[in-house]
Amino acid sequence: MLTTRNGDNLRARPMSAYSAQLENAVYFLTDLASHKDDEVARWPNVCLAFADTKAQKYLSVSGTAEVQNDREKIRELWATPAKAWWDNPDDPSIRILKVTPSSAEYWDSPGTIISYIKMAAAAVTNSKPDMGDNAEVTL
Amino acid sequence: MLTTRNGDNLRARPMSAYSAQLENAVYFLTDLASHKDDEVARWPNVCLAFADTKAQKYLSVSGTAEVQNDREKIRELWATPAKAWWDNPDDPSIRILKVTPSSAEYWDSPGTIISYIKMAAAAVTNSKPDMGDNAEVTL
Repeated sequence: MLTTRNGDNLRARPMSAYSAQLENAVYFLTDLASHKDDEVARWPNVCLAFADTKAQKYLSVSGTAEVQNDREKIRELWATPAKAWWDNPDDPSIRILKVTPSSAEYWDSPGTIISYIKMAAAAVTNSKPDMGDNAEVTL
Repeated sequence: MLTTRNGDNLRARPMSAYSAQLENAVYFLTDLASHKDDEVARWPNVCLAFADTKAQKYLSVSGTAEVQNDREKIRELWATPAKAWWDNPDDPSIRILKVTPSSAEYWDSPGTIISYIKMAAAAVTNSKPDMGDNAEVTL
């Protein structure tokens, strides 16, 4: 789930993530009407929480978000789940929410951190961060 | 998962929740060494995200947190999962993290909000908020 800040208030919402490892970013498709663009413009720091409660695997990704209106990228990210919200990728209300991770924490049970990863350096150099076992976390 | 704020940074972490509906609060046991007390003292607004990805049910609870050292309450909340972290409820490093919800959102699929509940009035009057279908969300 994606947690954003609106003033002092924190809110989470379920989102379908499209991970782009080579670009060191996580992408979401969002609707202009959701007002996430206003929120992340003022408070760009967000948190992505992935939980597989059955396997007791948890991942928290902290980073910064921006809303983009890149039509080519939207068509590239377009996939079956998006059809539930929009008829086609050319719907003008679709936006991209791009989250650039700055750090991540991974647990295989509540309370026990397996790894903590700082991604600032990777983000700057555009190299792929070493996510270790995180890649095994399913959403 | 519990998302807290530390300055501009947002972080999530898995926690075992103890819901106390009559008290209109969600309780967690936490360790003094986790430094959550410092964080929530400065930035009390937190977010609880509950996800049952299989059933596609999601719950976001926004509220304020405080750390308490109520030994009687700690003994009352003590349950089997806590034994993984502490030997017994008298461990002096155990603290209570109490989250008082101010609003909640509930989805039965990503993107479709079923209900939005403002709990401010309930919290003030100490009455039990009408959580509707939220009570059916399993962690």
